[in-house]
Amino acid sequence: MTTSTDSPIQTQISTQEIFAAHEGGKLSIGVDRPLATKRDLSIAYTPGVAQVSRAIAEDPALARTHTWASRLVAVVSDGTAVLGLGNIGASASLPVMEGKSALFKTFGGLDSIPILLNTTDVDEIVETLVRIAPSFGAVNLEDVSAPRCFELEAKLIEALDMPVMHDDQHGTAVVVLAALTNAVKVVGKEFAGLKTVIAGAGAAGIAIAEILLASGVEDVILLDSKGAIHAGRQDLSEPRNAMKLEYAGRTNPRGVAGGTAEALAGADVFIGVSSSTVPEEHLAGMAEGAIVFALSNPDPEVAPDVARRHAAVVATGRSDFPNQINNVLAFPGIFRGALDAGARRITPGMKRAAAAAIADLAQDKLSADYIVPSPLDPRVAPAVTAAVMDAANG
Amino acid sequence: MTTSTDSPIQTQISTQEIFAAHEGGKLSIGVDRPLATKRDLSIAYTPGVAQVSRAIAEDPALARTHTWASRLVAVVSDGTAVLGLGNIGASASLPVMEGKSALFKTFGGLDSIPILLNTTDVDEIVETLVRIAPSFGAVNLEDVSAPRCFELEAKLIEALDMPVMHDDQHGTAVVVLAALTNAVKVVGKEFAGLKTVIAGAGAAGIAIAEILLASGVEDVILLDSKGAIHAGRQDLSEPRNAMKLEYAGRTNPRGVAGGTAEALAGADVFIGVSSSTVPEEHLAGMAEGAIVFALSNPDPEVAPDVARRHAAVVATGRSDFPNQINNVLAFPGIFRGALDAGARRITPGMKRAAAAAIADLAQDKLSADYIVPSPLDPRVAPAVTAAVMDAANG
Repeated sequence: MTTSTDSPIQTQISTQEIFAAHEGGKLSIGVDRPLATKRDLSIAYTPGVAQVSRAIAEDPALARTHTWASRLVAVVSDGTAVLGLGNIGASASLPVMEGKSALFKTFGGLDSIPILLNTTDVDEIVETLVRIAPSFGAVNLEDVSAPRCFELEAKLIEALDMPVMHDDQHGTAVVVLAALTNAVKVVGKEFAGLKTVIAGAGAAGIAIAEILLASGVEDVILLDSKGAIHAGRQDLSEPRNAMKLEYAGRTNPRGVAGGTAEALAGADVFIGVSSSTVPEEHLAGMAEGAIVFALSNPDPEVAPDVARRHAAVVATGRSDFPNQINNVLAFPGIFRGALDAGARRITPGMKRAAAAAIADLAQDKLSADYIVPSPLDPRVAPAVTAAVMDAANG
Repeated sequence: MTTSTDSPIQTQISTQEIFAAHEGGKLSIGVDRPLATKRDLSIAYTPGVAQVSRAIAEDPALARTHTWASRLVAVVSDGTAVLGLGNIGASASLPVMEGKSALFKTFGGLDSIPILLNTTDVDEIVETLVRIAPSFGAVNLEDVSAPRCFELEAKLIEALDMPVMHDDQHGTAVVVLAALTNAVKVVGKEFAGLKTVIAGAGAAGIAIAEILLASGVEDVILLDSKGAIHAGRQDLSEPRNAMKLEYAGRTNPRGVAGGTAEALAGADVFIGVSSSTVPEEHLAGMAEGAIVFALSNPDPEVAPDVARRHAAVVATGRSDFPNQINNVLAFPGIFRGALDAGARRITPGMKRAAAAAIADLAQDKLSADYIVPSPLDPRVAPAVTAAVMDAANG
């Protein structure tokens, strides 16, 4: 295990190699039907294709079986919250969205196309996606800033008759739930009594709070840049804090005020999704058998070796430490399962089923350094797909 | 040569085989960078991709070289004029658009994605494509009904900083110009003195008239369902006939009124893009060495064997007769050339250069039955690409 907060993987790969790998983009279109002869053209294009188009016009359900759209995921971003880079705009987000499409294909066997928006107005984005909705069969929202992302996802789910998921919220939350499910087993605790602190009340933090509450964790404290969110905070009445205000009423049952020091005093779990840092002395106040998920990328909220001095289980978002909490464990199988099941919504039950499937796969070798399978584990996407399909049909 | 108006190719392929070939769609996404190891992920996705995104944010020109969008064609349709099927809607048009994408890849080596619109409002379509413009590098408009297609193309060209072309207009016009260039050589005539009749004043007819006028043909008569278009026609003052009114002032210099009989009397060239039929007795009135392009699909305006009784050169849109006038000769090379040249517009000069390149390729074996190369001729797209690049840079 590396004991430095440098980014060894990043530094061992040259900038030149990285840029070369992205040159010309990372995606291409494949043609699944050959067009080598006049006969091929007559089948795949005119005149043959007219029969297929006429049939779909008469029975729209045929579009599901005879076009690529019903299984195509639109990877949609407006570039407002790209990785740790912030609002860098739609075009600059495209290398990330192409990478996401590559992950969809590699791990889920799903085709997807990046759709970049050069508007950041929520209603305009909804209107735009509704207008081009016949082009695809699901929407993966990506790297949209909070709190806009909550409103955008909710409105899209209402407006589109297809699976819609903001992965930065729910993909993260699903994998955190899977990891926490196994971490509490390692330390011999249960969800019901768990004192949990989430640093970061953006897309990921809110979704993690939501899925933990729905899974039986009762004591969750959300922290934003001003400290613990509780019902007594005056600033939460601002319209942009509507989501935080809602969670002020549903979290922090002990009414803890203050910062990480106060929140972490006696806490069992720290989950960082904040791009901030946590001083070691605050971690020192956590309970015995503490669990620390320091998920900010590329720099975790606390170095794993430091965290391990005070915690029994440590996870990060990085591939060069044990216990990598990575969305790729979840989203390919979630979308594949939803599409294979013909589901119109991705429900909370489907998300929790995905988390359970991921957690199950680590059971056989469960330890403090192995609470989730590797993102490259080929068993993951099929298991998540099957679990999500079961939940969709159940 | 087949001497029947049946569709032999269509009838020899079973409906079952056609539907099987379209099942699941005809396109897929290819991943050009492997994602097999943690190192691959670190290069193509996080953390490596952040370097590329940050670089594009600082220098937007890098999006051109380090994403797929700059060379990606959006194949855009609202499904209002699909093949000969009419307004069958966006979803039903998708098999055609997938086929178009397959042709772009097979013949032009260009990636493209179908974008289907479930609005038919011109301004909404423009607004929508502007909002998602960072997703692609060119727009191929397809199967949009006239006269909306003229307004839509013009507005898109103004609104988008990238090549835009309505292929049903200009792809057809380019191949017709190529074919006519060679046909007049076969019959020993010249463009300047040519009496030309175009049946059909929709997308293709108007664009053919435009490119012929720009190429030195002086006597062009456009026919719509009410007969020859001339300045004296009262119905052309309706707003939806604005384009016809404009061409009434630029065509028909002899002021011919009436139908095909009157227009074809003494005519050198008949070009049918009308989905109508032309009686043999009207063709009998054409000049010696007549040229007949009966381009409606799947049923030409006149059977080729009938046309040959009165014409020296006959062409159709079908692959089972000689002289197939097919857009695939033009659009892959036109878009490839425009994108390779970094052109922001597809100009009239680029279209005429494409036509000249296509015509040139048939020179070595020029005859009444060989005025254009086969759509499957692998020399075509590279030659058109080179000619369009020259015209773009010249």
